[in-house]
Amino acid sequence: MTEVVLCGALGRMGKAILRLSLEYQDVRVVAGVEHPDCLSSTDLGQASGIREFTGVPLTSRLEEVIGLGQVVLDFSGNPEAAVGHARLAAAYGKGVVIGTTGLERSHLEDLRELSKDIPVLVSPNMSLGVNLLIKLVELATKVLKEKGFDVEILEIHHRYKKDAPSGTALRLAEVIRNELGDVKLVSGREGIAPRGEEVGVMALRGGDVVGEHTVFFIGNGERLELIHRATSRDIFARGAIEACRWIASQKPGFYSMMEVLGL
Amino acid sequence: MTEVVLCGALGRMGKAILRLSLEYQDVRVVAGVEHPDCLSSTDLGQASGIREFTGVPLTSRLEEVIGLGQVVLDFSGNPEAAVGHARLAAAYGKGVVIGTTGLERSHLEDLRELSKDIPVLVSPNMSLGVNLLIKLVELATKVLKEKGFDVEILEIHHRYKKDAPSGTALRLAEVIRNELGDVKLVSGREGIAPRGEEVGVMALRGGDVVGEHTVFFIGNGERLELIHRATSRDIFARGAIEACRWIASQKPGFYSMMEVLGL
Amino acid sequence: MTEVVLCGALGRMGKAILRLSLEYQDVRVVAGVEHPDCLSSTDLGQASGIREFTGVPLTSRLEEVIGLGQVVLDFSGNPEAAVGHARLAAAYGKGVVIGTTGLERSHLEDLRELSKDIPVLVSPNMSLGVNLLIKLVELATKVLKEKGFDVEILEIHHRYKKDAPSGTALRLAEVIRNELGDVKLVSGREGIAPRGEEVGVMALRGGDVVGEHTVFFIGNGERLELIHRATSRDIFARGAIEACRWIASQKPGFYSMMEVLGL
Amino acid sequence: MTEVVLCGALGRMGKAILRLSLEYQDVRVVAGVEHPDCLSSTDLGQASGIREFTGVPLTSRLEEVIGLGQVVLDFSGNPEAAVGHARLAAAYGKGVVIGTTGLERSHLEDLRELSKDIPVLVSPNMSLGVNLLIKLVELATKVLKEKGFDVEILEIHHRYKKDAPSGTALRLAEVIRNELGDVKLVSGREGIAPRGEEVGVMALRGGDVVGEHTVFFIGNGERLELIHRATSRDIFARGAIEACRWIASQKPGFYSMMEVLGL
Repeated sequence: MTEVVLCGALGRMGKAILRLSLEYQDVRVVAGVEHPDCLSSTDLGQASGIREFTGVPLTSRLEEVIGLGQVVLDFSGNPEAAVGHARLAAAYGKGVVIGTTGLERSHLEDLRELSKDIPVLVSPNMSLGVNLLIKLVELATKVLKEKGFDVEILEIHHRYKKDAPSGTALRLAEVIRNELGDVKLVSGREGIAPRGEEVGVMALRGGDVVGEHTVFFIGNGERLELIHRATSRDIFARGAIEACRWIASQKPGFYSMMEVLGL
Repeated sequence: MTEVVLCGALGRMGKAILRLSLEYQDVRVVAGVEHPDCLSSTDLGQASGIREFTGVPLTSRLEEVIGLGQVVLDFSGNPEAAVGHARLAAAYGKGVVIGTTGLERSHLEDLRELSKDIPVLVSPNMSLGVNLLIKLVELATKVLKEKGFDVEILEIHHRYKKDAPSGTALRLAEVIRNELGDVKLVSGREGIAPRGEEVGVMALRGGDVVGEHTVFFIGNGERLELIHRATSRDIFARGAIEACRWIASQKPGFYSMMEVLGL
Repeated sequence: MTEVVLCGALGRMGKAILRLSLEYQDVRVVAGVEHPDCLSSTDLGQASGIREFTGVPLTSRLEEVIGLGQVVLDFSGNPEAAVGHARLAAAYGKGVVIGTTGLERSHLEDLRELSKDIPVLVSPNMSLGVNLLIKLVELATKVLKEKGFDVEILEIHHRYKKDAPSGTALRLAEVIRNELGDVKLVSGREGIAPRGEEVGVMALRGGDVVGEHTVFFIGNGERLELIHRATSRDIFARGAIEACRWIASQKPGFYSMMEVLGL
Repeated sequence: MTEVVLCGALGRMGKAILRLSLEYQDVRVVAGVEHPDCLSSTDLGQASGIREFTGVPLTSRLEEVIGLGQVVLDFSGNPEAAVGHARLAAAYGKGVVIGTTGLERSHLEDLRELSKDIPVLVSPNMSLGVNLLIKLVELATKVLKEKGFDVEILEIHHRYKKDAPSGTALRLAEVIRNELGDVKLVSGREGIAPRGEEVGVMALRGGDVVGEHTVFFIGNGERLELIHRATSRDIFARGAIEACRWIASQKPGFYSMMEVLGL
C-alpha cells in the first residue's frame, strides 16, 4: 500500500486525484495540504465533498501530516511551494512527485540537489500515453532518419487554449530535432514555397477538445502516423497516482515519467 | 457509346485518359489532337505507346477529326487553345469538357457565351470525391452554423508542392465562408491567442502524398471529420471521362462537375 | 417556455437532461417519472441530488403529473412503458419525444397510430452530429453508387458496451442499403474470400470511448471518410432537449431528429 | 555490387523488383527464374518488357543460373518452391531472401535448419514502415499492459484481397499476444457480448487500397493509435532489394527484416 500526502488537495488536479485514487487498491491519499485561504475544514472529506475522505486530515502545514505517508505528491501550482515541500520530504526521508508546472532552472537545480537524498520525480505531463508517444516518436525518428521521410506534427486543442503550439507538441519537436539536427520549426504555411529542411508544427483549435497530438512520418509510398488522443483530464491524475506508487520503492535519484513507464 | 475527341492527347492527363478509357464499355477516345511539335506519328496508338489506340487518328488540327465524336475533351493545358477548341465544338454542335486550368475571366466569359449553343463543362478538379466533399462541407456548414461548432481545414500534399494552402483547400474555405460570413482564414498559429472568428487552413507537406483534405467541425462533446484522400492522379482522368459521358446527352448550358454528380 | 415531463428521470440520461436543462432559458423540466422501485423521494431535487429541482414532483405515475407540461420526454428504457407514456400523452393532447431504444415493429406501429393525434418524435440517437452524419452518408451513397466505390462502416465504443454493432452503425447501414439495394451486412471477416456485394460493419471495443462512427467510401485512387466522434454523452441529452423545444409547436405527425435539425 | 538471382521474376512483385533495382547502383538482378508455364522467352528483358534486362537469362531451373549471383531472392509465391530454392542456395553457399507468404511450420523448420549453413531471411512484408510499426507496437504493448488499455487492430486492403485478416495484421496480433499472454483473437463482433480478454483484428475491404494497419491502445480518457499507410507496392520491392544487399555480407543465421533495419 502506497500512502500519499497530497499538496494542493482542493485544486482541480487535487480533487481529480482524490476521486480517482478510490479506484486503486494499493494507493491511498492519507492527508491533504492546501493553502490556508482555502481551508474551510480540517477534514478532507468535508472540504472536498468526497465523503470517502471523511476522517482524513487536511491542513495548511505539510510538516503536521508528512509522517502519515511515504510519498509527497505536489500539485500546489506554486513552484516555490513545491520546492519547499520537496525540502521537507528530504528531511523526513520521503519520496516526492511534482506535477506543478512553471518550474525554472533554479527550482530544478534545487530539486536535483535534493534527489541525492530522496527519490524525486518531476513531470509537467504525467499521462502515460503522452509519455509513451514521446518515446515512440524518438525511436521512429532514429530509425527513419536518412531514409527519406519527412516529419510533421499536428495538435488539436479546445478553442480557449491560450498558447500555440502546445507544450507537448514542442516537446515532440524537441525530441525529433535531437535526432534530425537543428532543422527549422514551421507553425504555418502560406504562399509559394516547397518544403525545406523543416518540421511543421500545426495547431488546430476548436470545441472542447482536451488534447490530440499526431506525428506524421511521410515517405514515398508509405507513412506512419503516431496519434495520442486525450478525452479526459483524468489521465493526468491517473499518471500522478501511478508515479506515487512507483516512486515509493525507488532509491534516491532524479526521475521523470519515462522511468515509471519502464522506458 | 460516347465518342470523345481528346485534345492534349499526349500530355500526362491525356495519356492517363487514354489508358483509363479502356476500362469503360460506353466511352471511347476516337481521335487525338496534339500540338504539332509533339506529333511523332499520325497514329494515336503509335504516338502514345498504347497499342489499343492503333488505327485511331492523331492530328494537330481539331477540325480534321471533330466530326468523329460527340464530345471534345480539352486537356491542352493552354487556355487560349481550350477556348479555340470550344469555339470549333460550337460550330460543329458538339459538347465540350475543359480540364485545362488557369482560365481567366475573359476565357470564362467566352465559354459562357458559347454555352448558349452547346453544353460546356469547366472544372479544374474533376475528381468525384473532391467535388462530393465540397458539397458535403457546404451542407454540414449550413446545418452546424450557429450551433457552436468551429471549422478547421487540414490538407496534406507531397514535399514538392509549390503553393500552400492547396487550391482545393481554398475552395473548401470559400464554401465555408459563404455560409459563415466573412470570417478570417488563418494558415498558421504561433504564440498566445485563443481562437477567434476564423477558419484554420493548415498545410502539411511530406513524401509523395497525392492529396488529402480534411474539414473538421468541432463542437462541445462531439465532432465531425470529413476526409478525402487521393492516392492516384488517375481519379482526375476518370472524372473527365465521366464528365464526357454525362455531357453527351445534355442541352446547351454551362456546367461544372457538380451537375455530373447530380448535386 | 417549453415545460417537459421527464420519464426515466433518475436514469443516466434522465439525470444528464436534468443537469443540462438548467442551461436553457426556454425549456424546463416540471416533473419527473420513475419506476416505483427507484423512488426514494417524491421530490425530484432530493432524489436526483440536483437541488435546483427541489419542489419539482417525482412520481411513478405519469397521469399524476402529465398536466404540468406540454411535452412528455421518455427515457424510461422500457419500450412497453414508452408506448404507454405516448398513449397517455395522446389522451391528454401532449407532444411526445421517445429516446428509449429497442423498440420493435409493433411498438413503432402503435406510435405511428398515435401520431395521427399528437406529434410523436422517435430517435434512438438525438445527437446533432450523428444525425447530420446520417444525412451526409445518404447523400454520398446516392452520388457514389454505381461509380465503383465500396462502402464500409467502422464503429468504436467502450469495452462494456453490450451489443455490436451499435444501433447507430446499423442505422447507417440501413441508409446505405436503401440506396445500394439489399446488399449483405458483414460484421467480421476471416478466412479466404474476396469482398462481395456487401457492406462491412465492424465494431471495435475498448476503454471508455463514448462512440465513434466512420463510413468509408473506398474507390480506386481515392476515398472519402465521414467520421463522427462523440466525447461526451451530454450531446444526446442536449439533442433531447432541443427535440422537446421543437415538438412543442408541431402539428400531429411522426417525426425524427432530422426534422428538428432541418435536414 | 550485390548480384541477385530472382525467383518469380515475372510475377507482380518480381517485375516491381526488376524495375526498381535499376535505381540502385550496387544491386543488380543477374538472372530470372519462373514457372515453366510462364516462360515465353529465355531472355528476361524480352519476357518482362523491361529492355534493360535484355541479355539477362530467364529459366525455369534455378540450378542453371544460381552460380551467377550471391543471393537468391524468392517471390515464387509457392512455399514448397521457396524451400526448394533455399535448399539449392545452401548447396551452393548463397544467401537467400524469401518474400513468399503462406509458409507453414514445416517450411519454417526446414529453413531454420538450412540457416545453420547460409544466411536466410524470411519476411512476409519487407516494408521499412511496417517493420517499424511492429517494433513500436511491441514496445507500446510492453509499457501499457496491466495499465487498463485494450488493444484492437484494424486493417484495410483492396477489394480483391483473398485472405482476411492480412498476414501483417496477424503478425501484429502475435507481437501483442507475446506480451499480453494467450488472449483470444476476434475477427468480428455481432450480437450481445461485452469485450473479454481479447484482441479484435478487423478487416475492411474496398477499392484499390494497398494496405493500412492501425493498432489502437484504448484506455480510460486517452488512446494511442499507431498507423501505417502504404500507398504503393514499390515499398515492398525496395525493402526486398535492401534485404538482398544486407544479407550478402552476413554470416549463416535466421534473420528477419528487423535486423536489416537495425531494429
